[in-house]
Amino acid sequence: MTRPRIAARMAGIAPFHVMELLARAQALEAAGRDIVHMEVGEPDFVTAAPVVEAGRRALAEGRTAYTAAKGLTALRTAISDDYARRYGVGVDPDCILVTPGASGALLLAAGVLLDPGERCLLADPSYPCNRHFVRFCGAEALGIPVGADTRFQLTPELVAAHWDARTAAVMLASPSNPTGTCVPPAALAGIHAEVRARGGALIVDEIYQGLVYDGEPATALAGGEDVFVINSFSKYFGMTGWRLGWLVAPASHVREAEKLAQNLFLAASTPAQHAALAAFTPEAEAIFVERREAFRRRRDRLVPALRELGFGVPVQPDGAFYVYADAGRHTDDAYAFCFELLEAAGVAITPGIDFGAHEAATHVRFAYTTGLDRIELALERLRRFLGR
Amino acid sequence: MTRPRIAARMAGIAPFHVMELLARAQALEAAGRDIVHMEVGEPDFVTAAPVVEAGRRALAEGRTAYTAAKGLTALRTAISDDYARRYGVGVDPDCILVTPGASGALLLAAGVLLDPGERCLLADPSYPCNRHFVRFCGAEALGIPVGADTRFQLTPELVAAHWDARTAAVMLASPSNPTGTCVPPAALAGIHAEVRARGGALIVDEIYQGLVYDGEPATALAGGEDVFVINSFSKYFGMTGWRLGWLVAPASHVREAEKLAQNLFLAASTPAQHAALAAFTPEAEAIFVERREAFRRRRDRLVPALRELGFGVPVQPDGAFYVYADAGRHTDDAYAFCFELLEAAGVAITPGIDFGAHEAATHVRFAYTTGLDRIELALERLRRFLGR
Repeated sequence: MTRPRIAARMAGIAPFHVMELLARAQALEAAGRDIVHMEVGEPDFVTAAPVVEAGRRALAEGRTAYTAAKGLTALRTAISDDYARRYGVGVDPDCILVTPGASGALLLAAGVLLDPGERCLLADPSYPCNRHFVRFCGAEALGIPVGADTRFQLTPELVAAHWDARTAAVMLASPSNPTGTCVPPAALAGIHAEVRARGGALIVDEIYQGLVYDGEPATALAGGEDVFVINSFSKYFGMTGWRLGWLVAPASHVREAEKLAQNLFLAASTPAQHAALAAFTPEAEAIFVERREAFRRRRDRLVPALRELGFGVPVQPDGAFYVYADAGRHTDDAYAFCFELLEAAGVAITPGIDFGAHEAATHVRFAYTTGLDRIELALERLRRFLGR
Repeated sequence: MTRPRIAARMAGIAPFHVMELLARAQALEAAGRDIVHMEVGEPDFVTAAPVVEAGRRALAEGRTAYTAAKGLTALRTAISDDYARRYGVGVDPDCILVTPGASGALLLAAGVLLDPGERCLLADPSYPCNRHFVRFCGAEALGIPVGADTRFQLTPELVAAHWDARTAAVMLASPSNPTGTCVPPAALAGIHAEVRARGGALIVDEIYQGLVYDGEPATALAGGEDVFVINSFSKYFGMTGWRLGWLVAPASHVREAEKLAQNLFLAASTPAQHAALAAFTPEAEAIFVERREAFRRRRDRLVPALRELGFGVPVQPDGAFYVYADAGRHTDDAYAFCFELLEAAGVAITPGIDFGAHEAATHVRFAYTTGLDRIELALERLRRFLGR
């Protein structure tokens, strides 16, 4: 029997390599081994009680029907108010679309902006899904190699140097996954100006926005409303499994994004939207701040310890819950290194290959999404594994 | 300031026209008018109590983290068991991907199967999102005009006649939105054979599957595992706002669909997945059966009454909760007719234009997603509006 052909686009969509590693970790655990999980890009906290309670209440009240495609007005207003309160930036609630996770927001932004044959510039390394959304739309994701000298972020100069006639957009992530670094405000303004001067689109992934440990809280929306901002209730607000995020789009593009949302999603989860309303209460905020401090303590323990173990961490990560480490003193095959570390020492981390091509063979990502006690155990195991 | 260009694909993605009508209906309601809503493609029942309770329990137990991209093993197994119990068909749980609504399943199927320049055949009229998923992937949705003679469905002959070198897939919906008609088993087998002989893909939207009022329950999976089946917890299981559906893919395509799910969604909602487990309990099933009977009674009241009012309903709808009616005796501009009916009589229905081009100007869709008392009121208002 002839099988239906698989679409050509699928050759450009890679699976997460860490999934193979996770499968092996789970097999080891099933066989009785203890594994320290530092490969997972998800907070190790359950959703905060006030948010869970709001979700349970919404269900008890029968809030199970579709919302409008853009989401509940009350939630879009609450997000807008939060931009005003935290960042002093006015955002029209009409320009906010609540989406099924940041994933949904990325799909809307890419779908509205990128045609086949066009190019979107982004940093290499960066979050793999970002380039896959671009590819899904038939456009090319041009990963620009970045290093410690630019805090693993694009710069106005890099954008200008790589822009060509095909380029339609630039995508940044601040803080970045896997590097945890932010785009400094001056660089962001410069990139915005370069993109604007060329009539292109600037897309900024701010899903780790609340999880920044140094410096002032910032949003790219402060630079003007002609930017596409991706955000999420998953990380700072701790609602991963609920699948809720949002897109802020320029007024000129909102109607198109809404049309796409109607067709591609219908709407985001209704119980999740009602639950998220409670994420903006003082009770929830107190929990989020406490958890952020826990992440900060983990970072402050992990980064110097990794340096002592011979990993290169040339710039201090500003936020998220990742350390992107140069393992070049230990290996020239980071993928194999991650599997050996798992098998021999019971520590699971993510190989660089999941984030791009640039120096991927010598880099690994540590996620500090596990408690300090487990981080200590991982460090002890690493010490022995590396014979130090 | 130059605005970022809107992607060319967006010209092929239409908004739902009914949204304009809904906005007007809401404005009238805000001004104190009573409107009978027969435009809404959503059951008027809240989610059944056992399902809601399971969702609340999952939240209380802290089930708020990501699941695997394909969904909970327990849920995929429960879906597989349900295929065995209801339809006597064996479906490997590994071939089931739980998705954010049927929307997610449609995106996966289109993404894995359709490249730019390729063609997917579907019926005109049909659910608008189906053709928009095809277009989003850069492929062409060729709407084939169908009428009462084929129960508003494609036939093997129509598929054979319209297949060309560009054609990669055929998409059916059984029961169909807007017509409520099923593809008869012999026609389905014939279409499957035509598609198979050409090495194409058959995609069957079965989201209204549980809501069939006549004939034996059926699934396209009975015809072989080389079919892509889209399904949903929204309609029969009454979980619209939770956004949960599934895709059954051939074993040859599961890995690709999973890769796409990892990148485009990460996973479906965790609380929704836990809640859906309770949809397969006897307590929930009793509620679903009772609700199905309520829909059947509405259909049995509405169809003859519409015929008496001069609407053409040439074939009895088998299922879903729609009547696709020929309003040609009353209008040659169904879009204007729907607005006039709303303004003058306070009855909201959907114009044919939302479902395609074929005879759209003389057709309207009535959704019986409101109680019999409201349906009686709508009929009385229609009678006066039409002067009968």
